[in-house]
Formats: sequence, C-alpha cells, structure tokens
Amino acid sequence: MNTDTARQVRALRETVARLHGELTRYALVAWTAGNVSARVPGQDLMVIKPSGVDYDALTADTMVVCDLHGTVVDGDAAPSSDTAAHAYVYRAMPEVGGVVHTHSSYATAWAARGEAIPCWLTAQADEFGGEIPVGPFALIGGDDIGKGIVSTLSGHRSPAVLMRNHGVFTIGRDARAAVKAAVMCEDVARTAHLARALGQPLPMAQADISSLHDRYQNVYGQRSTGGSPGVPRRS
Amino acid sequence: MNTDTARQVRALRETVARLHGELTRYALVAWTAGNVSARVPGQDLMVIKPSGVDYDALTADTMVVCDLHGTVVDGDAAPSSDTAAHAYVYRAMPEVGGVVHTHSSYATAWAARGEAIPCWLTAQADEFGGEIPVGPFALIGGDDIGKGIVSTLSGHRSPAVLMRNHGVFTIGRDARAAVKAAVMCEDVARTAHLARALGQPLPMAQADISSLHDRYQNVYGQRSTGGSPGVPRRS
Amino acid sequence: MNTDTARQVRALRETVARLHGELTRYALVAWTAGNVSARVPGQDLMVIKPSGVDYDALTADTMVVCDLHGTVVDGDAAPSSDTAAHAYVYRAMPEVGGVVHTHSSYATAWAARGEAIPCWLTAQADEFGGEIPVGPFALIGGDDIGKGIVSTLSGHRSPAVLMRNHGVFTIGRDARAAVKAAVMCEDVARTAHLARALGQPLPMAQADISSLHDRYQNVYGQRSTGGSPGVPRRS
Amino acid sequence: MNTDTARQVRALRETVARLHGELTRYALVAWTAGNVSARVPGQDLMVIKPSGVDYDALTADTMVVCDLHGTVVDGDAAPSSDTAAHAYVYRAMPEVGGVVHTHSSYATAWAARGEAIPCWLTAQADEFGGEIPVGPFALIGGDDIGKGIVSTLSGHRSPAVLMRNHGVFTIGRDARAAVKAAVMCEDVARTAHLARALGQPLPMAQADISSLHDRYQNVYGQRSTGGSPGVPRRS
Repeated sequence: MNTDTARQVRALRETVARLHGELTRYALVAWTAGNVSARVPGQDLMVIKPSGVDYDALTADTMVVCDLHGTVVDGDAAPSSDTAAHAYVYRAMPEVGGVVHTHSSYATAWAARGEAIPCWLTAQADEFGGEIPVGPFALIGGDDIGKGIVSTLSGHRSPAVLMRNHGVFTIGRDARAAVKAAVMCEDVARTAHLARALGQPLPMAQADISSLHDRYQNVYGQRSTGGSPGVPRRS
Repeated sequence: MNTDTARQVRALRETVARLHGELTRYALVAWTAGNVSARVPGQDLMVIKPSGVDYDALTADTMVVCDLHGTVVDGDAAPSSDTAAHAYVYRAMPEVGGVVHTHSSYATAWAARGEAIPCWLTAQADEFGGEIPVGPFALIGGDDIGKGIVSTLSGHRSPAVLMRNHGVFTIGRDARAAVKAAVMCEDVARTAHLARALGQPLPMAQADISSLHDRYQNVYGQRSTGGSPGVPRRS
Repeated sequence: MNTDTARQVRALRETVARLHGELTRYALVAWTAGNVSARVPGQDLMVIKPSGVDYDALTADTMVVCDLHGTVVDGDAAPSSDTAAHAYVYRAMPEVGGVVHTHSSYATAWAARGEAIPCWLTAQADEFGGEIPVGPFALIGGDDIGKGIVSTLSGHRSPAVLMRNHGVFTIGRDARAAVKAAVMCEDVARTAHLARALGQPLPMAQADISSLHDRYQNVYGQRSTGGSPGVPRRS
Repeated sequence: MNTDTARQVRALRETVARLHGELTRYALVAWTAGNVSARVPGQDLMVIKPSGVDYDALTADTMVVCDLHGTVVDGDAAPSSDTAAHAYVYRAMPEVGGVVHTHSSYATAWAARGEAIPCWLTAQADEFGGEIPVGPFALIGGDDIGKGIVSTLSGHRSPAVLMRNHGVFTIGRDARAAVKAAVMCEDVARTAHLARALGQPLPMAQADISSLHDRYQNVYGQRSTGGSPGVPRRS
C-alpha cells in the first residue's frame, strides 16, 4: 500500500466507523446485526465492519480492510459475516462505492412477505425512482447473496433491494449515499406499511414518479457536495 | 438591510436553526427530509433551512435568507428544495409567520390514502379545530405545492394540511407555532391510526369540537407568551 | 405557610418538576400536553406544572402551588389548564397524593374507541388489578373531567382511567406512583393493542388476576420504599 | 466466600448492573419491569437485580447475590421478585450462565395470544434455530414459572420462551448472551408482527433454517470472544 492509498484507507476507516452511528440513530439495527462498507477508490480494496462487535466499540482502528474477495489485508479482527456479499457487489458493479446491510423492521417485513414496496410517496420517487424490489432467498456463506443483490439492482433505479426472508441491502456511489438509502428505505417502508394497514393507498402516475426522480438526482442538495446522492445511472 | 432588520434576521436564523431540533426530537424527519422557515416580520424576506444539510450541522450561520420568491438574499448555501412552497404561502397568507414541512410517518400514511384525519380526540379539536384536511397531489419545482397548501388551508381552522402522496405542511403565526402544529399533527395522526386499526373510534359532537378549539386558542398557555399558539383566524 | 409546610412545598416542587422527565423519557407526551401534580400532605394545597411551558424548561421554581380549588397560592405562572381536574380529584379522594394526565398514544387509542383495556397480561393484573376502565366524555373548564375520573375510579382497583376521546388520568398515593401508573398504562395498552391486532388474546382467570394484584400491591419492591406503589384500597 | 469467588462476584455485579442498560437502550422494559442475572461460575450462587429499583440507580453495589434457591447471601436490598424463576433455571440447566426477563411489547403480544413466533427471517434462524416457543401460564411466587421455562426450553434450540400472558425469559451461556437473545427476540417478534399484519409471510425451508443456525452458532463473531453467543447444545 503506498502513502496515498494508506491515507485514503485511514480516512475511510474513520468514515465507515462513524457512519454506523446513523444505523443506530435511526434504529435500523439491533445488537450487531447490520454493517457498512466502502470501496477504496481505484483499489481492489474495501473497508468494512468487524464481525459481531458492538456499535459503541467501533473505531477507525477496529475496522477491517479486505480485498474484493473478502480476504483480510489489514486489521486484527474477522470482517463482517456479510463480507462476501459486499465484495461481490464491488466486483460486479464498479460504479458502487458503498454498501449497507440492515434488518430494519418495516422493510424486512415487506421482505418476509416477498413483496416489493409500491411507490405511493414522493419521497420514494425521489430516492428510489419507483418500487423497491425484492431479491431472491439466498443462504449466507458464498456468492449467492451478492448475486441476488446484483441481479436485482442492475438496471434498476432503486439503490435498495429487499432480500427475501432476510433484510435490506443498499448501494451508493459512496458509503454515505448507501447509508442514506438504508435510512430512507426504512422510512418509506414504514409509511407504506401504515398507509396500507388502513386501506388502499392512492397510486402515483409513472410520469410523475420519473419526473420526481430525475429532479432529485440532479438538483437536490448543495452543488459543492456533488448533487445526486445515489449511484450514477448507467443508461 | 438596515440595522433593525439585520438584528431580526440574526435572531430568526438562530430560532429557525434551533427549531429543527424539535423535528428530530419527535422523529418527524429522516436524513434531511424536512424543513422550517420563518417570515422576517414586516419584510418581504424569509429565513429557511439550506438544502440537503444534516440536522446536526445546522447553525444560525448556515441558514439561508430568501425573498418571498425564493431568491437568495443572504447565505452561502442553496435554500431548501421546498423554498418555492414556503414562499408562496408567505405571499398568499400575510398572517402566517412560520411554515414547516415534514414526511412524518403516520400523518403521511393518511396522506398516501388521500384521507383527512377525522376529529376523534380533544387534542385534535384543541389544535386543529376539526379534521386535518387533505391537499392535492402536486409536483415540486413551481407554485403547485404552494397553491395546494393555500387553497386547502384558506378559511380552514387547521394549521396543517396532508398533501396527497407527499407529506405534511403546517403554518403558524411564527415558526414555533408551525413546528408545534407539525408535532401535534403527527401525534394525533398516530393516535387516530391506532384507534381505527382495531375498530371504529367514537365521533365527537361538532359543538364540542368548536368549544374546545375556541377555548384552546384563547385561554391556553401563559398570558406573557401571547395566548393562542395558532394562526389568528380571519373570520 | 409555616416553615414545615414551606419545606414540604419546596421538596414537592423539585419532585414534580423532575417527574415530568419520566413522561418525556417514555414518550407519553408531545409538546406540552401532559402534566403531573402532587398534594401537599396535610394541607389543602397541590403543586402542579405551569400551563404551556416546555418540559425542558421546567424547574422547581416554575412549578405552581394552588389550593384545592385551583386558585394560585404561590408561583408566577398560570397553572396547567387541567388544574381543575387535578383539584377535584384531591378534594374527592383524600387517599390520593398524586395525579398525572397524558395523551399517550396507545392508551388514548383505546379511549377514542371508548373501549376498556381487557386484562390479558400479568403486568396489567399486577398494577391495575384487571381491566383499565373508560370514563365519560367531558369538556375541560369545569368539574366535569374531575367528576368523570372520580366516579370511574372510586371503588375500582385501577389507578388509571381512559377518558373518552381524550386521554389518560392516573392517581397514586404520591406523584411518583401516579407517574408509574401512567407509564405502565401505556405499556400494557401497547401490548394489548399489538396482541389483538393479529388475533384474539387469551383470557386470564379472574382468580389469577386477583392473586397477582394482591401479591404485587403487598410484596413487590423494597420494604424501605413502602411496598405498594398504588393507592391504598379502601375496602 | 474465598478471595477468587469474591473477585468473580465483584466482576459479575458490575457486568449485571451494566447489562440492564441494554434493556433500556432497546426499550425492552418499562419502569422497573425486567431483570438480568448471572450465575457465579462453579458456585451455587447468582447475581441479580434488586426488586423495584430504577434502572438509572443500578450499580454494582446495589446488585444482590443469592444462592440458587433465592436466599440472599450478600446485598442490602430484596432481590428481584422473579428471583425464584432465575434460580430454578440455574438449578435445572447447568449449562446456563445468564437469565433475562422482560415484557418487551411485540414478543409479549405473541405471548398474550399464546402463539409461537414462526421462523420467517434468517435472523431468527441464526439466533433461535426456528420458532420461538410458548411456555405455560404460571403464577409468580413459587417454582411454576421456572418449571415452565425449563420444560419449554429443554431440548429446544431457542434461547427464548414466550410465557403465556406474561412475557419473555431468555437464557445464555452467560448474562450477555441472554441479554442478546432478549434483544433479538423483540426484534424478530416486531418484524414478524409487521410482516403478518399485511398478509402471509413466506415460509423458510427447515433445512435452510438449520443450516443458518449451525453456521451462526459456530462461525459468527470474533474467535477471541468465543464464537457461539447462545447456550452450547447438549445433543
């Protein structure tokens, strides 16, 4: 690792450790069940949470650096048990710079029924560009979860996938964008749940959904922070 | 800007920044999706949240001052993407001194179904004087949202409107009153949701609703803080 | 006020101010909508929250001392708009030393349907001795709310009443016991709501409920803190 | 008590006091209704919460040391009113080093209906190895609760039991593992509740559930912290 890469890794260790605080702030995770990773730009490396460590105990130093096959390159701890899925996404989707995994309650409830979240809210149109899709059931331990994420999100506007009977994976151009997608996924999953619990929510026109998504990805936020919070689309 | 106006603007920058803390305290907002603004009394100016900035990072200095057409007059950041809606309300409703926008979950669930919240609670009678009405579906980017808010709330007792498939806008004689209406809107939306989830809530007599509303607007609170927390009625 | 009474009042001002922190800790209240009071033992006096003041701003000094008809005896602020109801309870129920009022969401949802909470939980048997009853609809401003509380709770084991379309009032031998009843009322209201939302909860035998209530009122807790947390029964 | 035992007891007093902070962090408990205990390894002793004491006031010094029949050996306060149930579990299940009791809302709602929580989530397969079972209704005060816990959990993969109309008891090889099981029990109970509220969750294959459970109990976490978070299985 040269000096520039070492400096980048150091900064990402801090960013990734700190971003886990957003998962607890929004109550997306219980105990140690959720994780954030970031790709080291221009390197076949990622920074990820150690496995089974309390969120309170996470620091830059306890983060783990792996290659994109999940082999530890730097760090004393074993990496997250979801490392293989993160690594697969980085290998298959070069535009992705951050990956997040949670079992947030409302989103995971939709995943347990195997139901995509229909787009009934402008906030969902903004961030997800339509429904939030369901991915296949897949066992942990190999590439199956990673393949399910990539096959579901490739060519899809949504940066979030509901993995069946499991939970949420989100992607972003960096770790912060992926964390934002995880926060917004639970937020719209909750509101959609509550809306449908008492009746039938009103549909939105597809043209309105697309118009909202286009505007949000290109206009929202401060110019200096780069505009679009999601993953640049490839089409 | 003369000295008096500058002093007023300074105070409102601090008030508006601080009031966003009530949105996070009551979990009315996720990530950066919600905003507060205040009219500068006697001026065609408003103070509003910058776009896409974390709530933790909001300070008096990061607030943005705009004229009532949304043009930035003072501030380094782009104003909230909802600035046009706030500005339209201030232009059309001179008695309004504060506007708040959230996607709070329970209230937005009613909005997704396009259902007004019936008045089943004395707390709703106090603050809203009856049902909380639904406004039209409107796209962001022009005056449509502002028009929908104003046409729904004009002549209505409620300081809150549920914009269809979108979220909540509230008004008040000042920013604090509008924030209070946003907090109470989610509170009664949640209780009404829970009540109807297990059966049919009991209706309240219209005369009782009116009696409660009159009393609350005129008697409640400390005399020194001005009595009525809502917008002075125009009839 | 002699020196002993002044000392008692001073201590109760601190206790009552501090106990409001339990209402916010358990999210039983929104904005300023909930209040705690304590009787000054042996005096026709009570200490109560000022009207419309933020929970963060409550201190011993801002509490208000009233006689048992709600007339202010000591304090700069107007007392809670629910003062008449608290005062009526103290006049009618000499064994009561504390009163609490909230609009906590789940309990108030039962109140909006006018349904008592059936006893499906050992925790409810412990604290409430059976169902939590519903009181009548009553307008604020006179003795109607107080009369509704007293007529419902007199001779009833429950220290909590669900006032129709309104919210919760609880009583206790002191303010802390009344606050505990308010916390437990929302807790069992939520669990009972969730239980019934997906089916029919299992009934408990009346003899088991009575046995649990007797044990809890007489055995639970540290001997030095006086045993029973509720109101001493009169039969 | 010899010096080594005294040192062990001292450490467990601190651990048990601190672990109660996880019950409040995850909102598993209201007021004082929930408790943690730990077996003193190799001794017929346990460390447990005092009865009816606020979670804020818990310190190492206020914990109570009892023998495995619930008789106080060291401590100024009366032990938890659930001490007999904890003691029975330690006597009957020598592999158990920690016991936790809560009335957490979603899990207790399943208990109120007397329904086991079906396994619809990989997180539940990981921690519980299948459904979370229901134990019998039992009155406090003797060995009935303890017997119900032991008869339900003996030979079962789940470290959690839903005691009918009552709440949750969890076991673990130490107090931390039992607390984790209590946290995860409420988490999966909530997600399962939400999933079933809007339809029928998708079943998981028994082979997949077993595969996930085996992997999680043997692979997850850091090797240095001992691997499996649950109770070592006896078959």
